[in-house]
Amino acid sequence: MDLPTLQDFLAREFPQFEGEVLSLNETCCCLGLQIEDKHLRPGRTVSGPTLMALADVALYAAILARLGPIALAVTTDFTCHFLNKPSADRPLLAEASLLKLGKRLVIGEVRLFSEGEQACLAHVVATYSIPPQLTNARV
Amino acid sequence: MDLPTLQDFLAREFPQFEGEVLSLNETCCCLGLQIEDKHLRPGRTVSGPTLMALADVALYAAILARLGPIALAVTTDFTCHFLNKPSADRPLLAEASLLKLGKRLVIGEVRLFSEGEQACLAHVVATYSIPPQLTNARV
Amino acid sequence: MDLPTLQDFLAREFPQFEGEVLSLNETCCCLGLQIEDKHLRPGRTVSGPTLMALADVALYAAILARLGPIALAVTTDFTCHFLNKPSADRPLLAEASLLKLGKRLVIGEVRLFSEGEQACLAHVVATYSIPPQLTNARV
Amino acid sequence: MDLPTLQDFLAREFPQFEGEVLSLNETCCCLGLQIEDKHLRPGRTVSGPTLMALADVALYAAILARLGPIALAVTTDFTCHFLNKPSADRPLLAEASLLKLGKRLVIGEVRLFSEGEQACLAHVVATYSIPPQLTNARV
Repeated sequence: MDLPTLQDFLAREFPQFEGEVLSLNETCCCLGLQIEDKHLRPGRTVSGPTLMALADVALYAAILARLGPIALAVTTDFTCHFLNKPSADRPLLAEASLLKLGKRLVIGEVRLFSEGEQACLAHVVATYSIPPQLTNARV
Repeated sequence: MDLPTLQDFLAREFPQFEGEVLSLNETCCCLGLQIEDKHLRPGRTVSGPTLMALADVALYAAILARLGPIALAVTTDFTCHFLNKPSADRPLLAEASLLKLGKRLVIGEVRLFSEGEQACLAHVVATYSIPPQLTNARV
Repeated sequence: MDLPTLQDFLAREFPQFEGEVLSLNETCCCLGLQIEDKHLRPGRTVSGPTLMALADVALYAAILARLGPIALAVTTDFTCHFLNKPSADRPLLAEASLLKLGKRLVIGEVRLFSEGEQACLAHVVATYSIPPQLTNARV
Repeated sequence: MDLPTLQDFLAREFPQFEGEVLSLNETCCCLGLQIEDKHLRPGRTVSGPTLMALADVALYAAILARLGPIALAVTTDFTCHFLNKPSADRPLLAEASLLKLGKRLVIGEVRLFSEGEQACLAHVVATYSIPPQLTNARV
């Protein structure tokens, strides 16, 4: 899937997703999210679940970009290490790449940043299970 | 902290939290969340980030219950394994317990369920870092 | 598989495994390992990899006990939280139980102890992938 | 610590470690391990615990290289995703880099390879706790 097709698919299948796919190439899929009050925790930091939710969609988008429109890939495990405090005043960026594209499992990692800042906010590694019929056909 | 004190603290410090602390004892803190459309994904399943967000608050509540009102405990790592598909029609329950209450780190686990069902939906294990001054005083 | 069958299978397939299956029931598989000098790290603590290796075999044994002799189940992810310092002078115990027995993936957890002590040394949660032909036939 | 100092420290403190520090620069510490029969599992694959043990030492070496000789840094969590089957006939390589060097916690990641092959065998992310007195003095 190219960038506009991926954006259309996510808009249609994930109307709840408030972020945006910013760029897409062979190795990386980058998503952005504007920070609003509902994403904040005490101390004006972005909540951990906000970071994890963006990372989850970013990896899902990276998988879609490679395998085509698989609405039914499901997360099987998700590990996040929180590294630095996010800025409440800057959009959140997620850079997702795949570590392995297997027949049944896809494993990927995500690095999260505040736009314009160098420090990595969080590192995610997660596994997605691909429905059998699709992998037989496609991978 | 007892149950009403904990409920008050969360209501004040986490106005964004939509769930509820249901019960609290020496080994377990149980939270519930009513499922709404915004929590759903295609196929009428509850989204992974909804489960992870509830688990994160549940462990935070379990820590508060033991250490008192520490607004600044922060998640340092968070691992979730997704086990079974949640029901869209039942409240989500999270049962959190602590594995270790250390001077600087607290590690706990959470099991998530759909109310009235036996199958565990997801298992979370996570670490929280406690600010130094507080642990000197309390633990 | 019952306890003697499981012990025989492991002795035959895993001649490198130095531990022992101690007990087995519907919910839990318990393994033990005598601690030797090669398992120790500076400060006379048992090395983290020793704990992880025993936990890995314990979950594999718990899967064998339920699914029968599947020599080819492979670990896909493995998360360990280290909680307390192991004793160098006591055997290491691992209690493994399954969180989910799916068609393609099995997820389980392990708690590690020093024999005769209450404090949990480490908590492991891990996923194993089951070869397709076997799960079609058995699960 | 430079490469010879790090090699000497590991040889002295970790006489059990059978591998070798191959290279060291500002962003990466690379270790190698010759594969022997005791590292193998059925099917002539390198065992998961062998990969995890090498990754654990690799991150510890990367921390030593940055903080100096801290014999007491301890692993607090360790997550490994297994990606591809290792070759029994080639040395195992581990490339460790730090994601965050904090006052109390260091988080790093490791990628494992069979020498001369491109496919990543496993990805590890782990946290190490640094004793308080040392971090006050050094970081």
